[in-house]
Amino acid sequence: MDVFFYSTLLVLTVFFRKGCHAALLGNPQVIDMTYTFDDTTVIWPKREPFRLKDTFRGYHPNGYYYEGSYYEGYEHSGTHVDAPSHFCKDKWRMDAVPLERLMGLAVVVDVSSKTKNNADYTVTAQDFQDWEEKNGRIPDGSIVLVRTGWDQFWSDKRQYLGTDTTDTSLLHFPGIDPEGARWLVQNRGMHAVGIDTGSLSTGQSTNFSAHQILCEADIIGLESVANMDKLPTTGATVYALPLKIGEGSGGPARIIGIINNPESGGGRDEL
Amino acid sequence: MDVFFYSTLLVLTVFFRKGCHAALLGNPQVIDMTYTFDDTTVIWPKREPFRLKDTFRGYHPNGYYYEGSYYEGYEHSGTHVDAPSHFCKDKWRMDAVPLERLMGLAVVVDVSSKTKNNADYTVTAQDFQDWEEKNGRIPDGSIVLVRTGWDQFWSDKRQYLGTDTTDTSLLHFPGIDPEGARWLVQNRGMHAVGIDTGSLSTGQSTNFSAHQILCEADIIGLESVANMDKLPTTGATVYALPLKIGEGSGGPARIIGIINNPESGGGRDEL
Ligand SMILES: [Zn+2]
Ligand SMILES: [Zn+2]
Repeated sequence: MDVFFYSTLLVLTVFFRKGCHAALLGNPQVIDMTYTFDDTTVIWPKREPFRLKDTFRGYHPNGYYYEGSYYEGYEHSGTHVDAPSHFCKDKWRMDAVPLERLMGLAVVVDVSSKTKNNADYTVTAQDFQDWEEKNGRIPDGSIVLVRTGWDQFWSDKRQYLGTDTTDTSLLHFPGIDPEGARWLVQNRGMHAVGIDTGSLSTGQSTNFSAHQILCEADIIGLESVANMDKLPTTGATVYALPLKIGEGSGGPARIIGIINNPESGGGRDEL
Repeated sequence: MDVFFYSTLLVLTVFFRKGCHAALLGNPQVIDMTYTFDDTTVIWPKREPFRLKDTFRGYHPNGYYYEGSYYEGYEHSGTHVDAPSHFCKDKWRMDAVPLERLMGLAVVVDVSSKTKNNADYTVTAQDFQDWEEKNGRIPDGSIVLVRTGWDQFWSDKRQYLGTDTTDTSLLHFPGIDPEGARWLVQNRGMHAVGIDTGSLSTGQSTNFSAHQILCEADIIGLESVANMDKLPTTGATVYALPLKIGEGSGGPARIIGIINNPESGGGRDEL
């Protein structure tokens, strides 16, 4: 019994210690949930594109090889973070957002079946409740990722936004219903809400109500998030790290997902 | 004995599962190792500063409040990542750097006592060997952070770089000795090497040899890293997530350190 006891203890210790750093040691599964910033970056009507400028690539007179460029873009183009100040006066700007709010356990709410024939679909409280029915309560400190399936259109600017003109009345893509946003902020304690479209508010929104409801509650927004389909429903950790722009209303971000236990495929037990 | 066995098993299970997500659940200690991008950002001689442009803050005709800006900067200003392409032809550009190389266990090599009376101090192989003598071998996949103490000068551009003129011969700050860089790449398998000065190569370097040696070996560089003094010598995990600039030679980054077991204060056992 002593041998059994101590060998079990050893196995458990090794197993759990290994698990502790599974994200980085052993065989981590790290997902890049970020689109490259270049001329493929989808740009909101009337905004200037992301640009590299004054690129130098070549040999310096001193003999060494060198590359360097300036970069330029709009805070809300490409994969990015919305600070609460984006739509709410006197709320956190980008550099004031506590770092902890930019990370959390991922909760992937897949509504892609509902957007197939409805580009204007808005995600409701019922969608979040249906998710909880199957997967358990949305944990405090999590990052809720709404998966509409719109990432499939990223390479086609017209389809991703619904228009490639400057007429914003022609924008069509799914978003979060104000009623769904209200349910989340009144009932759950997530850190952030992300989406795989260009905006948390649907294309047809004219007053960005979903944004307003979320920022009023200090919830961080993530937009144009890539590769949500590569995450399990639960069981991954997301780090959404934006450029730390002083007084910014948001910023381009590198968003990654680390699957805590790749071999298990995630699941509520992993939370 | 059965009771003892199962209760021990339960305690162990709870302890280690809790430990697994210590970084995010419970009482995480997350350190922001990033300087804010604004007009306090230290800029290399002759480079243009980081700027927010065309900032709008106010009410839209539709009635909602809105803030938004363009941003602009040089890839190698402020807290940032050097892709190997920065000083090595045909090496990874920013968007080609594998995500795994941007994260790892932190190894803090503190040489600040040697820079006190020598702004031109260069970190040698002996410094890394001395560190290993005390702390054990630099692990594969780690992020080596060279702490010179230069972060104390961040708010004083002249002292941080040695000059506020455009004369690069007046640059004075510590860096990594080419011999130290060579020892690292030939003997150890870290993912990245970071420093708390503006450049991995010392201010007095005219050919950026340390950069060249590191990039030739596909080692990622981190420059103007903040708050290294808040990390334990070992026992933290660093995520250095840059803007994913298509074909960039580097990019402004959000660098964070997560102290795996805050209560233990780190230590080699935590690796
Ligand atoms: Zn936005
Ligand atoms: Zn650089």
